[in-house]
Amino acid sequence: MHPDLPHSQLKIRRVRLDTGRENVVVVSRRSKALRAEIFRGFSRVELRQGGKVLLATLLITDDDTLAAPDEIGLSEPAFRRFAEAVGTEVTVRPASPPESLEAVRAKIRGRTLSQAEIGAIISDLAHYRYSDMEIAAFLIGSASFITSDELLALTGAMAQAGTQLVWPTPVVVDKHCIGGIPGNRTSMVVVPIVAAHGLPIPKTSSRAITSPAGTADTMEVLARVNVGVEEMKAIVSACNGCLIWGGHVNLSPADDVMISVERPLSLDTREQMVASIMSKKIAAGSTHLLIDIPVGPTAKVTGGVEAMRLRKLFEFVGDRFGRSVEVITTDGSQPIGNGIGPVLEANDVMAVLGNEAGAPRDLREKSLRLAAHLLEYDPKLRGGAGYARARELLDSGAALKQMQKIIDAQGPSTCSNELGPLSFDVEAPHDGIVSAIDCLRMNRLARTAGAPLDKGAGIRLFKKIGDRVEQGEPLYRVYTFGRSEHDLAASATAGDNGYAINGKPLGE
Amino acid sequence: MHPDLPHSQLKIRRVRLDTGRENVVVVSRRSKALRAEIFRGFSRVELRQGGKVLLATLLITDDDTLAAPDEIGLSEPAFRRFAEAVGTEVTVRPASPPESLEAVRAKIRGRTLSQAEIGAIISDLAHYRYSDMEIAAFLIGSASFITSDELLALTGAMAQAGTQLVWPTPVVVDKHCIGGIPGNRTSMVVVPIVAAHGLPIPKTSSRAITSPAGTADTMEVLARVNVGVEEMKAIVSACNGCLIWGGHVNLSPADDVMISVERPLSLDTREQMVASIMSKKIAAGSTHLLIDIPVGPTAKVTGGVEAMRLRKLFEFVGDRFGRSVEVITTDGSQPIGNGIGPVLEANDVMAVLGNEAGAPRDLREKSLRLAAHLLEYDPKLRGGAGYARARELLDSGAALKQMQKIIDAQGPSTCSNELGPLSFDVEAPHDGIVSAIDCLRMNRLARTAGAPLDKGAGIRLFKKIGDRVEQGEPLYRVYTFGRSEHDLAASATAGDNGYAINGKPLGE
Repeated sequence: MHPDLPHSQLKIRRVRLDTGRENVVVVSRRSKALRAEIFRGFSRVELRQGGKVLLATLLITDDDTLAAPDEIGLSEPAFRRFAEAVGTEVTVRPASPPESLEAVRAKIRGRTLSQAEIGAIISDLAHYRYSDMEIAAFLIGSASFITSDELLALTGAMAQAGTQLVWPTPVVVDKHCIGGIPGNRTSMVVVPIVAAHGLPIPKTSSRAITSPAGTADTMEVLARVNVGVEEMKAIVSACNGCLIWGGHVNLSPADDVMISVERPLSLDTREQMVASIMSKKIAAGSTHLLIDIPVGPTAKVTGGVEAMRLRKLFEFVGDRFGRSVEVITTDGSQPIGNGIGPVLEANDVMAVLGNEAGAPRDLREKSLRLAAHLLEYDPKLRGGAGYARARELLDSGAALKQMQKIIDAQGPSTCSNELGPLSFDVEAPHDGIVSAIDCLRMNRLARTAGAPLDKGAGIRLFKKIGDRVEQGEPLYRVYTFGRSEHDLAASATAGDNGYAINGKPLGE
Repeated sequence: MHPDLPHSQLKIRRVRLDTGRENVVVVSRRSKALRAEIFRGFSRVELRQGGKVLLATLLITDDDTLAAPDEIGLSEPAFRRFAEAVGTEVTVRPASPPESLEAVRAKIRGRTLSQAEIGAIISDLAHYRYSDMEIAAFLIGSASFITSDELLALTGAMAQAGTQLVWPTPVVVDKHCIGGIPGNRTSMVVVPIVAAHGLPIPKTSSRAITSPAGTADTMEVLARVNVGVEEMKAIVSACNGCLIWGGHVNLSPADDVMISVERPLSLDTREQMVASIMSKKIAAGSTHLLIDIPVGPTAKVTGGVEAMRLRKLFEFVGDRFGRSVEVITTDGSQPIGNGIGPVLEANDVMAVLGNEAGAPRDLREKSLRLAAHLLEYDPKLRGGAGYARARELLDSGAALKQMQKIIDAQGPSTCSNELGPLSFDVEAPHDGIVSAIDCLRMNRLARTAGAPLDKGAGIRLFKKIGDRVEQGEPLYRVYTFGRSEHDLAASATAGDNGYAINGKPLGE
């Protein structure tokens, strides 16, 4: 805080500009009291009203309809977070950068940070005091090297920055998959099985950011997922489980902020991934956690060495925070189930839970295997009885019944479950055996088709690895709602349709 | 480039939003053809029209006056750079990040980059293809460690990215000060002395970003400084020298882009400073370069070890690019001259050139010393004759005459040279001897007073280190144009006025 910096009163105006995560404000170049050029050295300003403070990135305008000389225009996130009425007078002054940035610069220069320094950084991140550039500075400064102590401090600080859930039972289980495999909706089968057995499994999930569907997007086809903390507790108390969107529960706000910058930069470091996942699970009050790492040539993790390193990191952090963490690797060589996209994936899930004849066997088997691990956290099932119990709960219809109970508790879906009316098939160019399916390519194709925005857009797979196909036989069908999505998806499959037939398996 | 990504035609609209360096565009949430949510995974879009391509950061709006569903709003820098009329149809699609970002990520992971990789990064930077976050990623990834070869590649690529000047004479001299000392306007005395002798010295300078005056801001009080390349050549041909703003000459566009991100992050690494300065001097065609490193407790460089490291780096890069580089350290313990702020500094410069009685001796002596070094690049003056020749040119009025010639060639100033009408004096709180003056604090105070925006705002110093003062005697006078600047500056001096009297010198 520089007491000698200029400041001034300006009236709030709302600017309907969605600036993503970042607080952005607009000031007139002819600003009555605040001369924009004084700010040249400062790209950030501080707004004060009563006890409230908001840090924001400053843009200058010559358009009075955005901000007149006596006004300050608040973009949507800034307006929402500052929560003051249009016309309210606020004090505006150039903002000194958050003090914790000094620690970020020290990290960039190669110094190891203390727990207190990391705590201050995470607190400032969670309170939206960092600009996107400053967030990037922290992430990149930490990307090349962080110590084990720094990783623990980071995880702990992130877990404490938001909501922290406490459950009345000694064992609270959870599962997490590090992602990347299309159609991999095991949580929606595992949760009802485990909940039907009686183990609490309060599952929060994410929405898709770069994939065609997150578990939250798929569950939304069946039930409401925008559920707050108190309601979540009531649902878990009644049903032993839930399948809701994590965004409303605010378990690791600092993580949400960091992800918004990691994604556009495609930064992906092991340590940050582990801190991100573990902070959310610790804040969620889980005592026993199963981590699923799919390994395959087009999966996030492509080899056993990398999977082992990740496993060690997860176990290390879990140990230090007194959580039991089990890490398993699974087959990530191709999509799981037949559908890719929210409605198609929800259909797969309900077919497995309903023991339907056409239900995808791989989704069923993987879900049973994961559920078995979780069930064995129940002392009565320890030592190998988990799988039989999981199968029993699934085959008997108990899991389906539990799923209906969870759906009823969360409330009805407001989404249509119709598939896209425009579809086309992609056919095998020659006879042979499917030798590989490119997960990255299938994800991108399903997004081009309109998923997750169009819940019923996506891909239905007819063939998987090992299947024999004849020339002209359909490999998969693409569903879209609009002509332009249809044409774009069709042209995207023209060059490389994502399937290898009689080829070498990918990555060998 | 993903051929399978959606794209669409939208009409250009101009949005009067100054987004600084970054290209920003605005699309309606109800965009007719381009559904904003498809873009969730992409924060960047690509605009195409004819052969032109522009990469920009995407914002979403619900306000049709910013962008209707069939429009795309271009913020000021994007509108200026794309240079297409309002209403023109452009193709818009999600943008793949520049390919060179892969090398940035490799650098973050700790790999050393090749010359080709660094060349690609710098070219993308200079063509505004990086977002601010991506620029930060490169700067921070390189901040902790770059090899000597990387430093050379970086300097070379930056020098080649913009205008490269070629002069008809074998010796072209230049000087550069790494900055931070208030009032330090030696260039405006050195250039006319050296030019009067007949050595070409085509000096480009920066405007203030965080200081109260850059040499370009101060020269602008006396003459026009917004001069382009061809005109610059004519001026140097006629006068042997010039004192113009570097911004119009575009010597290192990649550097300008990087500085726009380094500043808000306060990133300051030796290597990036050396690459920045040397790339501009190489592009400017200088053969002999004098670097001035002021050392003092509140200067940029606070000790001899740091100054020596910088010197070695400058000499290393100079050698490899075949430029003669001489690095000297100077006294950076207090402001140079009596004035701080464009008009006050211009007055100091003209008083020194005019040999006036009250001219600041420290500015005169430092300028003579620097001019002496530069003059000895003339073989006829080698070996110690530079100082006498510099003094001769200054005392005889030849330097003043040369300055008038340069001013006439550049054209008349359009700025007022009036001092701010509201002023106040800061007085010594007790008798004693001035033991220290805080450069950082005086810079900030002059900015609070309104410099460099108000050319006549700033500080006139009456006392320097070693001067005896009596209680109540004025130490300096602060000039402002507005009541609010006056009051803010007055309150800023109330706590700590920047002067130590009878104290320990700072830093000891």
